[in-house]
Parts: sequence; C-alpha cells; structure tokens
Amino acid sequence: MKRIIIDMDEVLAGYNAKVLRILEEETGHKVDKKDIEGGFLSQNLSADHLKFVSALPYRPGFFRDLEVLPHSQEVVNELNEGYELFIVTASVKYPYSFKDKHEWLHEHFPFLDQENLVFSNKKNIIQTDYMIDDHPRNLETCTGKPLIFTAYHNIHEDRFQRVNNWLEVRNFFSKGL
Amino acid sequence: MKRIIIDMDEVLAGYNAKVLRILEEETGHKVDKKDIEGGFLSQNLSADHLKFVSALPYRPGFFRDLEVLPHSQEVVNELNEGYELFIVTASVKYPYSFKDKHEWLHEHFPFLDQENLVFSNKKNIIQTDYMIDDHPRNLETCTGKPLIFTAYHNIHEDRFQRVNNWLEVRNFFSKGL
Repeated sequence: MKRIIIDMDEVLAGYNAKVLRILEEETGHKVDKKDIEGGFLSQNLSADHLKFVSALPYRPGFFRDLEVLPHSQEVVNELNEGYELFIVTASVKYPYSFKDKHEWLHEHFPFLDQENLVFSNKKNIIQTDYMIDDHPRNLETCTGKPLIFTAYHNIHEDRFQRVNNWLEVRNFFSKGL
Repeated sequence: MKRIIIDMDEVLAGYNAKVLRILEEETGHKVDKKDIEGGFLSQNLSADHLKFVSALPYRPGFFRDLEVLPHSQEVVNELNEGYELFIVTASVKYPYSFKDKHEWLHEHFPFLDQENLVFSNKKNIIQTDYMIDDHPRNLETCTGKPLIFTAYHNIHEDRFQRVNNWLEVRNFFSKGL
C-alpha cells in the first residue's frame, strides 16, 4: 500500500485564518489576505505585529479549534481506503500543540489511525510515496512525489505539482487508485 | 553524514525504574527487576497493578524527571559530532509527554538539535542508517542497522546486535567513526 504524508496546518486546518482573526480582534490590525499573497506573514507585518502573531501558537488551545479546510474530511476518508496515511506536523516548538492536535484530529478525522499523527520538524526523514504540504521547504527534500497545497504564501511557487484544494487532491489520486 | 535514530524511554531515560518506584511507593507492591526479566510488565503484574502502572505516563510531569541512563550524555555528545542524530519516541498517546520530553531533553542533552526530537508511534517510516532501541517491534522493521539496547524485557532477544549500555554503543560506533 502506498503512503501519503499529509501536512496539518494550512492543509487540513486553517491556521492562518485564525492567526489573522485574532490579530484583528486583539490589536485592531486587519490584514487582507490578498495583500499578503506570495509571501510569509514575517515579510508583511510590522515587528510588533509579527511578535504578536508569533506568540499565538504557544497559547494553550490555539490548535484545538482551527477550522477544518473544505472537503478535507471526505477526501481524506476516501484516500484512507487505498493508501497508508500519516499526518505529519512540524509544530514541535509549541508545547500545547501536541494535546490540541491529537484532540482536533480525533474529533474531525476519527476514521484515521490516531497513532499515525507524527510530530517531526524535518519531514524529509520520513519515507513516503506522496507528500501534500504547503511549505516548499518540506517539498524540496521529500522522498516521494511532492504536491503543493495552495496557501496564500506559496502562490508563486512553480516547482511542484499544485493542488488548489481537496477536490483537486481527489482528482489527482483518482487517476492512480 | 549517516543517521542514527535513538529511542528515549529505557535507552536515554529510566522509564521503568520510575514506574516500579511509584508502584511501590503508592501501592506497597514491590517488584524485583530480576523477577520480571524477559517479559513485559503486562505479563508480570496483577490486573489492578497493571492498571495502576498503565495510568502513570498520563500524569503531567511523569516524563520530566526520569533518570538519565549512565554514560548516555557523554556518548551521545560524541556521536553528535559524526552522525545526524534523531531522538525518536513513540509516546504519542500521552498528552503531557510532549512538553515533559522536550524540557527533559533540553536539560540533559542541550547540545542536541532540539528540533530533532520526533514523536512517531511507527518508527519504520523513518529513514535511518542505525537504530538504537529496546523494543524488538521497532527493530524488526527498521530501515537501517538495528541495535538492541538491553532492557529487562528484552534479555532473551537474539535477533539483533546487542548493546548492553552506552559504553558498548561507543565501542560499536568507534569502529565506524
């Protein structure tokens, strides 16, 4: 059975949407996603606002209520029938992410083998046939076929086959199933 | 640079020593390590005592003060010069292990790249040249050369090259360095 490793933040879970929402709620600074396309938040915020958003994932519960990205549940459920799926997240820096992410995954993707949630900052040590991720740095050294999942920061990236959403992921794998 | 993946509990950290100590302190049941050699605790405890020890790793702080196994710090420090080291732990079930283990590693092995702590229940997805682990189930499917680190439960295992302690790990790798 072929293996797919699937990133969590910005692929299954709406990380940046929550960051920008809290930034606005608590500082009043509103960021329009269109204005930051093609770059990371670190390139588009003042030093103070950057410090603010960098501290958010250290908050207990931050990862517990992220929005589930559209169609991810149904497509991951389908893929789970024909592939060995691992959810691989790099968020090893954030002490509360572990509990929050386990609970989040258990709530929203209960059909997955919950033991297949992996925390590894360096994803290229994992053997895989496919990787779905929004970060070029993970895709560059992937041991399998890299698929870039569209996020605001990667829209100018052209080195990898692109999937804009989970329906496009379904299309990609339906050819191979 | 070749890669070594190193297990945490019973290889770097004295997990069972703490389990048996707390079992005795809180229930009065004393287990002599010699009496349980060659089997897991699950095969050597009553149902009540097994339930008690199974709950211990769920306690906040349980993993924070485990004993550092003899010579592990000096030998891991030496290996860190010539190999790419990853500390890979399977304790994904225990919500508080994440914070505790990060802090423990930072305290006792500060020279390691702290981002190279990986939480993965299935270790055979990780590409490696060597694995140092006490559990046959991890070593059986290791992608590299497996080294079994002696623990009370594995003393009858004869399928893997054995290292009884960290000085023997040093000897093994000094031939290859």
